[in-house]
Amino acid sequence: MKFSAEFSVRFGEIDQARVVYYPRFFHYFHQAFEEWFAGALGVSYPDLVLKENIGFPSVRVETEFLKPLRYGDRIRVDIELLEIGRTSITVGYTLVRLADGATSARATIKNVAIDNDSFKPVPISDPWRRRFEKFKNA
Amino acid sequence: MKFSAEFSVRFGEIDQARVVYYPRFFHYFHQAFEEWFAGALGVSYPDLVLKENIGFPSVRVETEFLKPLRYGDRIRVDIELLEIGRTSITVGYTLVRLADGATSARATIKNVAIDNDSFKPVPISDPWRRRFEKFKNA
Amino acid sequence: MKFSAEFSVRFGEIDQARVVYYPRFFHYFHQAFEEWFAGALGVSYPDLVLKENIGFPSVRVETEFLKPLRYGDRIRVDIELLEIGRTSITVGYTLVRLADGATSARATIKNVAIDNDSFKPVPISDPWRRRFEKFKNA
Amino acid sequence: MKFSAEFSVRFGEIDQARVVYYPRFFHYFHQAFEEWFAGALGVSYPDLVLKENIGFPSVRVETEFLKPLRYGDRIRVDIELLEIGRTSITVGYTLVRLADGATSARATIKNVAIDNDSFKPVPISDPWRRRFEKFKNA
Repeated sequence: MKFSAEFSVRFGEIDQARVVYYPRFFHYFHQAFEEWFAGALGVSYPDLVLKENIGFPSVRVETEFLKPLRYGDRIRVDIELLEIGRTSITVGYTLVRLADGATSARATIKNVAIDNDSFKPVPISDPWRRRFEKFKNA
Repeated sequence: MKFSAEFSVRFGEIDQARVVYYPRFFHYFHQAFEEWFAGALGVSYPDLVLKENIGFPSVRVETEFLKPLRYGDRIRVDIELLEIGRTSITVGYTLVRLADGATSARATIKNVAIDNDSFKPVPISDPWRRRFEKFKNA
Repeated sequence: MKFSAEFSVRFGEIDQARVVYYPRFFHYFHQAFEEWFAGALGVSYPDLVLKENIGFPSVRVETEFLKPLRYGDRIRVDIELLEIGRTSITVGYTLVRLADGATSARATIKNVAIDNDSFKPVPISDPWRRRFEKFKNA
Repeated sequence: MKFSAEFSVRFGEIDQARVVYYPRFFHYFHQAFEEWFAGALGVSYPDLVLKENIGFPSVRVETEFLKPLRYGDRIRVDIELLEIGRTSITVGYTLVRLADGATSARATIKNVAIDNDSFKPVPISDPWRRRFEKFKNA
């Protein structure tokens, strides 16, 4: 399975070069990650964070920027699970410009599951493992 | 007394119109507010928030935007205390473009002192009242 | 008529006080303003900016913050036209928390129509005047 | 040679987890990159962009996040030139928490020199090559 979230490039997301300021791509990826939980994993990310007291900070990021995004572009972020470890998940992102289908950026982001109080890694529970694994080999 | 903080307009703060996206003016004002505490009021804002457990959320904002800011502009934010109530302060901000001395924006922002746990207003203590009052009629 | 746009409060929009950082309310207002054009005024804001070469910078902002927004809150921004002048519109915003219907913030923002090259005010054309006026006395 | 820029972690840069939202690390890196030009390369980045009409968009990013940043942290970003190609530079960033000297994050970012009008890569000129090379093997 694959999960996708769509966004519009906003007026305030553009920089001096009239393209999206590259740090904001990571905000798109994070928003897609948040929507993945509510939209496909069965527990919203706010509920995971606030009720299960679990977080998934990013510990490693690799990204390629291929095509710029301009004001008004509609974009789609496709998510797939690349790897699941004892306490971490590695998630692949493909950011597509809807108008021409071009891949604008690709990212691989590793997130460690932590207890939000101690900030220490915690094993990914079996129910969560099963939820995530549906998105492997998308 | 008056307190001033200086900033540079960054590449990523510009919007599609090639001027600073107006919500970021409020980020400049808030950063100047934060620097005021460390730089002139004797207690840093992180210490106020984390050790004294007090916050100053904004409850009322009035702003006039007079001249746009462009990439590379150096700016100065002048702060003065306009009013101090039982649980609130009202702070005036003047944002000046250093290159030509033009006033780019003016704001009046009212902040209520709260207890960070309860989010309820708390009276401004006498030591804080004395610190703030030095910046009245600047 | 009234126009509304809905948003979710994102993980990265929260500040140290665990509520939405107040400058981001203006980003919500601006995004609602952008959606108003595509959703109800018949010309998308990107088309207005890029094809008609018109912009609507904010020149005056008044805002009251009544209730904080927390992570995961769903919000609705209601837009109405308060006033239309020769070269400006004044737009009212009400930001509602969907879970409890509470008004979180109210804003009045005056925007001047400008030519994007000269940054000079331009009269609001009759077709635009008619589009805007439908949202008066909402 | 090495170039360093210092920043303070701001109230509005913190996220729901009470640490800096990770996309903002890239804003720190970009701001350090901008300061490198004015502070050590002899031409400010605004002048490069606005007068020489050259830009350096990021095309590849690799980052490791090692230690979180909290509100009030003072940080230093160390920059070194890792590689210089015909049309690109690859820059290494180390983000250090000043209070304890811990490395918070490390990044390698490849930027392509482009003509700002055509968005096409352009060769890095000899004067620029000499300026950058001083920061190799820092």
